[in-house]
Amino acid sequence: VDNNVLFEFGVSDSKPLLFSFGVLFNCMLDSAEKLERLSSTLKGKVVTDADILRTFSKDMSPVKGDALAVVRPSSAEDVLATVQWAVEHLVPLVGRGGGSSLEGESVPMNGAVVIDFSSMDRILELDEENLSVMVEPGVVNRALNRFLFDKGLFFPPNPGSWEMSTIGGNAATNAAGPRSFKYGSMRNWVNGVEVVLGTAEKTWFGTRTRKSSSGLDMVRLLVGSEGTLGLFTKLLVRLAPIPAKRVGVIVPLEDVDTATKAVVKLTHTPSLNISALEFVDKECLDALNKVQSASLPESGAALMVEVETEPEEADQKLSSFLSVLSDFKLAGEPLYEDNVDAMWDLRGRITLSLEKLYGQRYREDVAVPITAFPELVRGVKQIFMDKQVNVVVFGHAGDGNLHLEFSYDQLEKDKLNSLLAELFALTVGLNGTITGEHGIGLLKLPYLGLEHSGASLGAMRRIKKALDPYNILNPGKAY
Amino acid sequence: VDNNVLFEFGVSDSKPLLFSFGVLFNCMLDSAEKLERLSSTLKGKVVTDADILRTFSKDMSPVKGDALAVVRPSSAEDVLATVQWAVEHLVPLVGRGGGSSLEGESVPMNGAVVIDFSSMDRILELDEENLSVMVEPGVVNRALNRFLFDKGLFFPPNPGSWEMSTIGGNAATNAAGPRSFKYGSMRNWVNGVEVVLGTAEKTWFGTRTRKSSSGLDMVRLLVGSEGTLGLFTKLLVRLAPIPAKRVGVIVPLEDVDTATKAVVKLTHTPSLNISALEFVDKECLDALNKVQSASLPESGAALMVEVETEPEEADQKLSSFLSVLSDFKLAGEPLYEDNVDAMWDLRGRITLSLEKLYGQRYREDVAVPITAFPELVRGVKQIFMDKQVNVVVFGHAGDGNLHLEFSYDQLEKDKLNSLLAELFALTVGLNGTITGEHGIGLLKLPYLGLEHSGASLGAMRRIKKALDPYNILNPGKAY
Repeated sequence: VDNNVLFEFGVSDSKPLLFSFGVLFNCMLDSAEKLERLSSTLKGKVVTDADILRTFSKDMSPVKGDALAVVRPSSAEDVLATVQWAVEHLVPLVGRGGGSSLEGESVPMNGAVVIDFSSMDRILELDEENLSVMVEPGVVNRALNRFLFDKGLFFPPNPGSWEMSTIGGNAATNAAGPRSFKYGSMRNWVNGVEVVLGTAEKTWFGTRTRKSSSGLDMVRLLVGSEGTLGLFTKLLVRLAPIPAKRVGVIVPLEDVDTATKAVVKLTHTPSLNISALEFVDKECLDALNKVQSASLPESGAALMVEVETEPEEADQKLSSFLSVLSDFKLAGEPLYEDNVDAMWDLRGRITLSLEKLYGQRYREDVAVPITAFPELVRGVKQIFMDKQVNVVVFGHAGDGNLHLEFSYDQLEKDKLNSLLAELFALTVGLNGTITGEHGIGLLKLPYLGLEHSGASLGAMRRIKKALDPYNILNPGKAY
Repeated sequence: VDNNVLFEFGVSDSKPLLFSFGVLFNCMLDSAEKLERLSSTLKGKVVTDADILRTFSKDMSPVKGDALAVVRPSSAEDVLATVQWAVEHLVPLVGRGGGSSLEGESVPMNGAVVIDFSSMDRILELDEENLSVMVEPGVVNRALNRFLFDKGLFFPPNPGSWEMSTIGGNAATNAAGPRSFKYGSMRNWVNGVEVVLGTAEKTWFGTRTRKSSSGLDMVRLLVGSEGTLGLFTKLLVRLAPIPAKRVGVIVPLEDVDTATKAVVKLTHTPSLNISALEFVDKECLDALNKVQSASLPESGAALMVEVETEPEEADQKLSSFLSVLSDFKLAGEPLYEDNVDAMWDLRGRITLSLEKLYGQRYREDVAVPITAFPELVRGVKQIFMDKQVNVVVFGHAGDGNLHLEFSYDQLEKDKLNSLLAELFALTVGLNGTITGEHGIGLLKLPYLGLEHSGASLGAMRRIKKALDPYNILNPGKAY
């Protein structure tokens, strides 16, 4: 075996790979023969049924791919063997959790093999006292939270997809959700990972301690890397104690400006212990009232707020909350919702309700510094009005993260692209980011240069080369 | 100019550097000529006075280095020019903030040039509403907090060195401190950086938004990289509103076991809103009573706790706090300290007090999962007793981060090394990390393999090569 090629990529200190003239030979095998070889090295399954390939060639974005096969690994060893096989045959690999990615992150392109982590969904080791749990990547977010509930614990990042999305997928895309206002996104909650790198090495990064300054922070580099640097085989995530009481409040406000000013004031009052601070516009309220038979206010905008409190302090907290808002003109009485999960379930049906009313929707999730929120919303409405496309906005106002949804199937591609280009230019012009939590995937790739310099993207791509020298892990995505 | 050598390192897509036969010529220049060339390209100063070189050849660790020169940059452009010069002449560079690093991080080895960032100490742009501030790297942590105080804001990470250490240095070592129990370490507070990479490119990473999933998380990779990947020229850090009231409580306890059990219970009771949760042993209490004329309890151990509260809720919070502790036998009445900063000032004098009593001390900062704290303390005391070395332990118990101090100047080097090896083996055996907040620098480098696999360290080193292909940024440190 001639390993010279390895030295060029600087992986000389890792264990040698079967990478040499053999690769040339392997490339001459036809797909069936390649997959046969893969199958023979795995305990798990290699699936090639046409129906399954069709399902696994999509995520929840409009991107369509073409899976060569779906691997259902039974263990980390299967994942390692799959990566070794992919290196030997130069076949691209895409990890997939619940398939709920919105930008094409988990879509197999150019005949990639999908690794379906739903077959690795065990909760391995709960450490209640140290507030952590080790899981396999395929554990569904909500299933983990159900498991934790009667221990009085929870896993805070709660993306809208939590009924189907997995901890591995949440980590790969640095997912967030309403509670990120208080708790932050996935990067704050993954403490350690077992991972198979593109060099076909299985290793562990991170720590079981709450704090460490030992070596580079590889965990946070891998979280949000959209499967381009490594494939998680275990994740050690931190947990939080379930607060004694959570109360929901819906605050009707006249318009986005007032809502934003209220949000800024609330973010400066930490003693309120707000855990989620959401914004919805009139169209969202109307859609929920119409489709879900909700009784939400018919104001120009509303905030949906979750406050954490001790039960005996709840009244005092809510009156402090109202007194903080006394500077602002409310467009109606605040509604209290003792069952805050019901409020969030309703909030989670915005997309579905809009689809019922208007058909399938295109979704974006730009974010700006909070004070730029009104200008962003005004600008968005202007851009869409100019193009005569109806748009609805809502989002995680406390994080400056605006979700917008609009019909797209009737749009020509050029019109869509120019809408997006204007939206992202507006966002970046307001010191924003083109994605608050959905990631880049394939769909946002053309707009990355608006936000990141050539030198920054160059640095990211050199890191990709350092950890995935054969470019087999979700190539052509994310950066 | 022959740029082929660049392609080997994969920096072909960045702007070409003056790196070629010229380097050979440059290496033949003597030091004075090299520094002359450097000086001519800078607005800032290049200093070579022997006294200054001596000062800048040390940090607060026992490591001694040998600076070739000290650069005092006046701007990011000076830093960029210095890196370009270093690449052309293959001279190593070490960034330095307050020089308070404890593991040799800022010590120049092998004739490195020190970049003294204390000359870049401007607070550039405060954004009160969005809770962020852009600073130059040389701003001293406490100076920033003084500036923020009358705006009702603060910068949470508060390492013991905050009177002298800088935001740039804090970021380079991922510094933390007592308040990290609630607020986390530097990685949670740096949102964006302007940085000069080892490729002699100045660029920006990160965002002004609270949340982003756009590209790799380069910010958290750079934070804690100890100046091995890039040199910060600006940092955008997040701020928090100053809590309405902070109360200190000192809880005397019989021993470490009881203290740890109490800590675990307290970490499971988030409604107490504890922001710092410190542990001191009997020797610390005695030293503070003796040297600082404090009136601390003479118990076997004590917790020093900071609670954040609304003024009108303070009594209720403290009684909740005591009722949570009612399961544990206290070794005396809890002491309340309304002036919590006085309590922390006292806590900050532990090292000084121990030095007064016992002479200069060697300092370590291992961390373990909280529940392993008693076993760690027992093991530490055993290891040091066996070697007949007196050791004092204290630390950030809420983070499982144990500080230990012991006399070292009379120790032979072999004895010290074997003490450290045993300490780190014990720590890692308890699922711990060899450094909670001080970093690796030079001193902990020999023990890295205890915590990280060869594959993990290999991956870190390939990342170093990707961002610092000429190995000029703090070479031979950190990983």
